[in-house]
Amino acid sequence: MEIDLSRPILERNDTLAAANRVRLAATGTFALDVLASPGAGKTTTILATLAFLGDRFRVAVIEGDIASRVDAEKVKASGIMAVQINTGGACHLEADMVSRALDALPLEELDLVVLENVGNLVCPIEFDLGQSARIVIASVPEGDDKPLKYPSIFAIADAVLLNKVDAAPVFDFDETAFTQGVRNLNGAAPIFRVSAKTGEGIGEWAEWLAERVKAVRAASL
Amino acid sequence: MEIDLSRPILERNDTLAAANRVRLAATGTFALDVLASPGAGKTTTILATLAFLGDRFRVAVIEGDIASRVDAEKVKASGIMAVQINTGGACHLEADMVSRALDALPLEELDLVVLENVGNLVCPIEFDLGQSARIVIASVPEGDDKPLKYPSIFAIADAVLLNKVDAAPVFDFDETAFTQGVRNLNGAAPIFRVSAKTGEGIGEWAEWLAERVKAVRAASL
Repeated sequence: MEIDLSRPILERNDTLAAANRVRLAATGTFALDVLASPGAGKTTTILATLAFLGDRFRVAVIEGDIASRVDAEKVKASGIMAVQINTGGACHLEADMVSRALDALPLEELDLVVLENVGNLVCPIEFDLGQSARIVIASVPEGDDKPLKYPSIFAIADAVLLNKVDAAPVFDFDETAFTQGVRNLNGAAPIFRVSAKTGEGIGEWAEWLAERVKAVRAASL
Repeated sequence: MEIDLSRPILERNDTLAAANRVRLAATGTFALDVLASPGAGKTTTILATLAFLGDRFRVAVIEGDIASRVDAEKVKASGIMAVQINTGGACHLEADMVSRALDALPLEELDLVVLENVGNLVCPIEFDLGQSARIVIASVPEGDDKPLKYPSIFAIADAVLLNKVDAAPVFDFDETAFTQGVRNLNGAAPIFRVSAKTGEGIGEWAEWLAERVKAVRAASL
C-alpha cells in the first residue's frame, strides 16, 4: 500500500498561506517571494533593490536557509530589519515558517516584506507562502538552458530577473535562447536584465516592484 | 495524526541502492554521483574529465533532470553513451531510477558510469544510489559561503571541485573562506580547483578519479 501524504501536507500549507495572505492584506503589506539557485545572487539583488528604493517603503527581509545566519547578518548590516529562518534541512520555505517569522515583525508598520527562499529551483514551487508575487532570479554563469531544465519555476514567476549580466563577456550565454526559453513557459512575466553588483537594470525592476507595493498599500488605506 | 513516510521511502531506496551496488561491483563498474547547484557546470566538467581520461576507461553517463534531454544530447554529441532520466518533478535521483537506467546500459562492458544528479544542494543527500563515490561541484560565481549554507552536502562529499576558477577575477570570491568552510565540515575530501572551460586542474582531479576506477575494476577481475 502506498499512501500519498503530499496532498494533506500541501492542503495544510495552503490553509496557512491563505491566512498569511489575509494578514498581509489587512496591514497593506506586499510580500515578495524570491526564488533562485544557490548563488544566483538573491541577497545581493534584494539589497541593491532596497537601496534603490531608499526610504520610499518601510521594509523587512525574511531569510530562508538550511543553516547559518549569513544572509540575515548581511541584511542587518545594511540597516534593514531581518529575520532568519533555518529550515533544518527542508529545501523550501513553508507557510507556517513564514507565519512565525511574520509574528516577529511589526507588520502594521511595513509596506514590503521580502521572503528570500532557500536556494532551489524545484522544491519551493508547490509551497504557497501567502506572497503577493514571486520572482525567479537566474544568473548568467548558470547558463542559458535553465528554463529548459527547470520549467515549472519559470512558468509560475511573476517576473524573471537575469542577474550578473556584467559577467556576460566571461561566459558563453545565449541571451536569446534564455529569453525564448522563458517565453515558451511564461508569456506574461517581464524579464529584467540586471547586475546587482554594478546596479545595471536594478532601477527598472525596482520601479516594477514599487508600482505593485504602492497598489497593495493603497488598497488597505 | 501525522505519519512519517520519510523512513519507509528511504528504507526502500536504501534496499534498491544496495542492489545497484552489488550489481556494479559484480561488473567492476565504478559509479560516480555528481552533485551541484543548477548551472555549476556539472555536464561541462563531466565532459572535460572524460575527454582527459580518453580511452583509458569504457564509460557511460546517466543524466538526471526534472525535464528536457539537453544534457544527454550534449554527452552523446561527444561520442559518449548517455541515458536521460527525467524525474518528472522530483528534485533528486533515486535508486530505482538509476536501476532502470543501468538496465539500459551494457554494464559488463563499462568501467565507469557517471550519474549526473539533478541540480540541487539539498534533496539528493539522503538518497543513496549505490554509487562508489560522490562529488560536489561548487563554482566561483555562486560565492564562497555555500558550505555555510548547505553544510550537509559538503559533509558527505568524497571530493569537492571548485569550478569556474577562470572567472575568479570577475567575482569577489574568498577562496580561503571557501576552503575553510569545507574543511570545517569535511576533513577528508580533497578540494580540486578546476575550470571545465579552460581545462585548468582537470588532470589532477581526473587522476584522482582514475585511481579509484582502476581499483574497482581490479577488484572484480
